[in-house]
Amino acid sequence: EGLDLTRRDSGYIFLLEVVEILTNYVRKTFDRSTKILDFHHPHQLLEGMEGFNLELSDQPESLEQILVDCRDTLKYGVRTGHPRFFNQLSTGLDIVGLAGEWLTSTANTNMFTYEIAPVFVLMEQLTLKKMREMVGWPGGEGDGIFSPGGAISNMYSVMIARYKFFPEVKTKGMAAAPRLVLFTSEHSHYSIKKASAALGFGTENLILLNTDKRGRVIPADLEAKVIEAKQKGYVPMFVNATAGTTVYGAFDPINEIADICEKYNMWLHVDGAWGGGLLMSRKHKHKLNGIERANSVTWNPHKMMGITGLLQGCNSMCADYLFQPDKQYDVTYDTGDKAIQCGRHVDIFKFWLMWKAKGTVGFEQHIDNCLDLSAHLYNKVRNREGFEMVFDGEHTNVCFWYIPPSLRGLPDGDERRESLHKVAPKIKAMMMESGSTMVGYQPQGDKVNFFRMVISNPAATRSDVDFVIEEIERLGADL
Amino acid sequence: EGLDLTRRDSGYIFLLEVVEILTNYVRKTFDRSTKILDFHHPHQLLEGMEGFNLELSDQPESLEQILVDCRDTLKYGVRTGHPRFFNQLSTGLDIVGLAGEWLTSTANTNMFTYEIAPVFVLMEQLTLKKMREMVGWPGGEGDGIFSPGGAISNMYSVMIARYKFFPEVKTKGMAAAPRLVLFTSEHSHYSIKKASAALGFGTENLILLNTDKRGRVIPADLEAKVIEAKQKGYVPMFVNATAGTTVYGAFDPINEIADICEKYNMWLHVDGAWGGGLLMSRKHKHKLNGIERANSVTWNPHKMMGITGLLQGCNSMCADYLFQPDKQYDVTYDTGDKAIQCGRHVDIFKFWLMWKAKGTVGFEQHIDNCLDLSAHLYNKVRNREGFEMVFDGEHTNVCFWYIPPSLRGLPDGDERRESLHKVAPKIKAMMMESGSTMVGYQPQGDKVNFFRMVISNPAATRSDVDFVIEEIERLGADL
Repeated sequence: EGLDLTRRDSGYIFLLEVVEILTNYVRKTFDRSTKILDFHHPHQLLEGMEGFNLELSDQPESLEQILVDCRDTLKYGVRTGHPRFFNQLSTGLDIVGLAGEWLTSTANTNMFTYEIAPVFVLMEQLTLKKMREMVGWPGGEGDGIFSPGGAISNMYSVMIARYKFFPEVKTKGMAAAPRLVLFTSEHSHYSIKKASAALGFGTENLILLNTDKRGRVIPADLEAKVIEAKQKGYVPMFVNATAGTTVYGAFDPINEIADICEKYNMWLHVDGAWGGGLLMSRKHKHKLNGIERANSVTWNPHKMMGITGLLQGCNSMCADYLFQPDKQYDVTYDTGDKAIQCGRHVDIFKFWLMWKAKGTVGFEQHIDNCLDLSAHLYNKVRNREGFEMVFDGEHTNVCFWYIPPSLRGLPDGDERRESLHKVAPKIKAMMMESGSTMVGYQPQGDKVNFFRMVISNPAATRSDVDFVIEEIERLGADL
Repeated sequence: EGLDLTRRDSGYIFLLEVVEILTNYVRKTFDRSTKILDFHHPHQLLEGMEGFNLELSDQPESLEQILVDCRDTLKYGVRTGHPRFFNQLSTGLDIVGLAGEWLTSTANTNMFTYEIAPVFVLMEQLTLKKMREMVGWPGGEGDGIFSPGGAISNMYSVMIARYKFFPEVKTKGMAAAPRLVLFTSEHSHYSIKKASAALGFGTENLILLNTDKRGRVIPADLEAKVIEAKQKGYVPMFVNATAGTTVYGAFDPINEIADICEKYNMWLHVDGAWGGGLLMSRKHKHKLNGIERANSVTWNPHKMMGITGLLQGCNSMCADYLFQPDKQYDVTYDTGDKAIQCGRHVDIFKFWLMWKAKGTVGFEQHIDNCLDLSAHLYNKVRNREGFEMVFDGEHTNVCFWYIPPSLRGLPDGDERRESLHKVAPKIKAMMMESGSTMVGYQPQGDKVNFFRMVISNPAATRSDVDFVIEEIERLGADL
């Protein structure tokens, strides 16, 4: 037991062999001739592909076999850092971020206290302050925490709002409050709905707001629904504005929403989990104008920033700024410990190290590049035969239908809709079989399945974007 | 941008240099002559120790400087894998676990779907089933999830219990339920209290149960408080039994508690975040007798198992088993997605890989070794001059006071208590200054500060335990 990692001992050699496997994997991932995935069905993997045995056993395996397991695990996985992987919001692999993660796991500590994580605790403080400055809160004042994902950060915002307006709920439960209602866009992330259910508000007390054709909340609809709720005797408490919706990449008009929040004394939260990265760009940050008026903000620095996504959805900030000069107010949910969690993973180091390596200007450049590349994609697809745009985008989400030749003559109607609905899934299945590229699709409201391409991978170039479009045409030609 | 990790390119060389730094760090960590930490106050680190600049800047740093940053980060950190680090529940560094973490960050995916994490999704399924079998649920049936820590798992258990008994709360909020009460030990983890506050029950509706002198819940006290609550018209809904309390390592009597839960139709949750590891040991698992009767269980596999603690508090299971044969019942909180989170970190691989490398027998041996070593510590301290035990333990928590010579003659009373209360903090501060060892301390109820030594580090031996005792005597001799 234990590890005596002296030179030439088996532990040291084992670790170097693992590094060899990993660096080979990374190298191949960036080679465009490598397949993104080697697809197999669950039953095939469970039956043991070429001896890859997923079952756990009583007896130990040799370190040699462990190396084989590592190779097989990578072999049957998905190369999310591949330049042609556009399937998720967060993609890409950064070598400094990777080094940061390796160091974090080696340092093997936890954000409990300064006592056991002195350096990381200070890094987190400094980084959060810098991020609050970028949000535009005067002097970077406020509080914040890295939590395991935007969904949890959004949940914190609802909790903190409730604590501010009805602190007695903490001890007496929801019975101590009147009927509270929350507001969010019909396009917002489902985590707001989950928070309403989990925290005891009830999903029926989360009112969905109508959006315009680009997917942005219509402020007048918010105000009308606030008035309606008040007339029913309910108490409007919380509004979530989304900066970068998941599907459309839409930015809700924060300033108009903030006016309404001030007028009716409601908490304003901005969910910038996806679009917050634009704060790093002098060119694009205007899309978040008004964010400095928010009471709380969720910002996932890993998204849109090419951070090694070990912490995909694992890295986010909930900064809580209170405009009141009364600094005695306890912004933390539970005195002395801010997190719902007990132990807290060291998320900060990877991000800190990447910031060091890129500088703020490097982040800005990456954001600008992603937006440029999505503009290229948009222009390429907009007037192309066989493609139809879902909307004009503001973010790097580019959403479109591919219309196979067989459907191009059909008039709009149920028949065409039903056929078109099946096109994206079919093309996606073929993509996965061939392993050439990966792009997501989904329906939205009354719109049938469309492709959603998202640009965030630093390795992607114009030719990769072009490749995907041509691949869709190739695979869909005979549908 | 992007990474072209061809041989001899700067990226490849950078990564190998990082690995060199990390393997050196690990090697030194296991060398007992290395200090556990080189303590500095926050202002010292913030002022920049020997050029170590924590501030983020606009301009990028060179990769050479990034390597220096990595070295400095480790230099001013705490070596939690050191054989003489006994400060937290979860310690130790396992080379296979480390490799698992490195691979996870390189694979850079997320537990969203089979589509993007086929291998990891299957590994999680198989591992959770195996763990449910160990809990003793027939056929390993049930459900489960790896969540970011025991605290979140405990929160899930309360949510699921509420959903079972009052499903309409999800849509209508807590107003749809009567006044619900929850029960937990006065020694239980504070996450139960946080869950009561967060989920809208209110901390006043969490009833604390009295414990015996070993810190175990007294079942008669539970029944009396259930009856009292019912007489007031409240609805007793949920009982948390702790298998291994944080400070004492006490195991609540699960069978007796389960009888009461059945009698009064309450949900039984077992928080095995700390003591669940004993299920791996044929010799010690009897301490959790009755756990198979629980409706849900939290089990942090990394604790007590020497797993690389990157995921200290980041790796845990909430298995939900329903005794009803009615499989139509939806155990998931929200259909289709079990987690509160959206993206979910790949926690499974490290654990799976370690299980492969050690086998079930290896985990068992580690647990048995830890218990043996804590028995050694207990026997060493029990009758030693200047030491007083807090209680007779059942787990690897060994809690004791060190009484400096100057206090040994004093009669029990306020003066002695006040002086004794200051002893452990003073010795701890000296330990941290010298960097020789680290042990935690805390008060509990009316007991003044005592040391809590916890054995979970696979690298620790009897001589390390002896060293700590002698170090306490050395540092405390003149207090």
